[in-house]
Amino acid sequence: MKSYNVAVVGATGMVGQKMLEVLEELKFPVKNLFPMASIRSAGKEINFNGKPYVVQELCDESFDQDIDIALFSAGGDTSARFSPIAASKGVIVIDNSSAFRMDPTVPLVVPEVNPEDLDWHKNIIANPNCSTIQAMVALKPLQDAFGIERIVYSTYQAVSGSGVKGYADLENGLKGEKNKFYPHQIAGNCLPHIDSFLENGYTKEEMKMVNETRKILHDDHIRITATTVRVPVFYSHSESVNVELKKPYQLDKVRALYAHAPGIVLMDDPENNIYPLARIAENRNEVFVGRIRRDFSVDNGLNLWVVADNIRKGAATNAVQIAFELVKRELI
Amino acid sequence: MKSYNVAVVGATGMVGQKMLEVLEELKFPVKNLFPMASIRSAGKEINFNGKPYVVQELCDESFDQDIDIALFSAGGDTSARFSPIAASKGVIVIDNSSAFRMDPTVPLVVPEVNPEDLDWHKNIIANPNCSTIQAMVALKPLQDAFGIERIVYSTYQAVSGSGVKGYADLENGLKGEKNKFYPHQIAGNCLPHIDSFLENGYTKEEMKMVNETRKILHDDHIRITATTVRVPVFYSHSESVNVELKKPYQLDKVRALYAHAPGIVLMDDPENNIYPLARIAENRNEVFVGRIRRDFSVDNGLNLWVVADNIRKGAATNAVQIAFELVKRELI
Repeated sequence: MKSYNVAVVGATGMVGQKMLEVLEELKFPVKNLFPMASIRSAGKEINFNGKPYVVQELCDESFDQDIDIALFSAGGDTSARFSPIAASKGVIVIDNSSAFRMDPTVPLVVPEVNPEDLDWHKNIIANPNCSTIQAMVALKPLQDAFGIERIVYSTYQAVSGSGVKGYADLENGLKGEKNKFYPHQIAGNCLPHIDSFLENGYTKEEMKMVNETRKILHDDHIRITATTVRVPVFYSHSESVNVELKKPYQLDKVRALYAHAPGIVLMDDPENNIYPLARIAENRNEVFVGRIRRDFSVDNGLNLWVVADNIRKGAATNAVQIAFELVKRELI
Repeated sequence: MKSYNVAVVGATGMVGQKMLEVLEELKFPVKNLFPMASIRSAGKEINFNGKPYVVQELCDESFDQDIDIALFSAGGDTSARFSPIAASKGVIVIDNSSAFRMDPTVPLVVPEVNPEDLDWHKNIIANPNCSTIQAMVALKPLQDAFGIERIVYSTYQAVSGSGVKGYADLENGLKGEKNKFYPHQIAGNCLPHIDSFLENGYTKEEMKMVNETRKILHDDHIRITATTVRVPVFYSHSESVNVELKKPYQLDKVRALYAHAPGIVLMDDPENNIYPLARIAENRNEVFVGRIRRDFSVDNGLNLWVVADNIRKGAATNAVQIAFELVKRELI
């Protein structure tokens, strides 16, 4: 089997570490690993597949090395600066930041949903926003079977989505310490504020869900609104997803679709208290779907509760799955 | 000023204690207080307006005493059994349980919204469900000005809504102890499960929001769906409320309405990180409204974020305000 030289940029961050873990776990064929980070973390030693590696400092010359794929998770500014350099040197970049997601020349890919978009990549592929990824996995079977008219998203997002600083704010907040990272205390609070506010009153996170959904599902006519909320949970995003389908549906058909859909675990037995939960999804690669029920307030309405580990399927796992898909499609 | 003999049934519970606190704070004209509870709590001494009272055991003869108003918060079964006894003896019951809410002969009242329904009471008045009350206060100005076509509720509800046992489950869960009350760990989790499940896949809590909204707003044609979720927060329910209005609206007009609406605090300055929060609403009697923005996905769509202390405005405060309204309308 062919193997590849893989760089992980931001290798010491929360998502970067999880990328390394998932590359190992899913046994991606890594020949040589190139962990990279900013000067702050360069020189640290990490372990991968039982071997030690020293974290390199990311610089303009980093991609002069023999690298096939670079998984980036070091923030938008770092991606914006270094991804084009890597791409120009023939490295395929899978970028977890928002820098290129809405660039029409860059595919935005969830492998279960739109793997075919990889075919037109020009060496940069964007990994979608965490809250969007899990919704896409859950909505794709519905789009294919019935078409989607409108979506109302309300999210319940974990602090790990803000990286170590968000995590620490909740951990310390629960001990009674003051918030340092979030604008308000997250312990005991639900903050309707993720990423910065835009002029239209929405947050960037909310508009990511709107715009990325349309791009991934290839349908600019889907009508979408979103309210994104940070909750005092460490791992896994939960989502209340209200959907209006184009065609009539049967609930049994929806459940049957989910029972066989790729990347989905159907958990929908409320009588026995079985439904998706953040702590069940923690450290799992799948998207959990449940609380499936008819929305009687509109024709072809449907309510879903969708949960996934935001650091895994919402970030690291999806990026590694993209790498696997590139191999499978012989695009690398 | 006339004063009244007031019974508080369930006086030692979480809501009952808050009823006593709010009666004091808002200076309801109490002549004599009759704290009552089950045999488990009877005999305990409580303080009210600086005077000690002994908690009586609730029994069939309790309402033979000279009582004008009884605030009930001792669960549905207790209300179902004892409210009719009290009512038959001329006591006006304000009942916080769900026992009589959907009874067409019983008014279901939020004083800022439908005080006129008190006029036809037959000695039992129902206090709505906590999550419904705060939504009603926020939606009434919109209904009056523009009409409401459809509502999609997603809630973020505090553990105090389950009383002391729910509260303890979160407190202990945060220390790493196992859940005793909820079917799953609430610490670090969002449970899409409040009250029991019905055959249509909804929880009772979700259907309360649907049915009580229609009854309080006097409009059976409003189309409503709800997803209700317990979050690891001690006090105050937060709600993502997506509304479709009947008529076109201007955002400035909506904000102006909220700036002057009774019982509402408008907190809507996202640029300065000002929006409603559970910990800001804690121990306040008002409903906090913010994140007001156009929902571009539907004609006349609007998104709101609505927060209130579930034990105060969602229960005790609303009940005491009903008592004040009875006095004001000379119905007592």
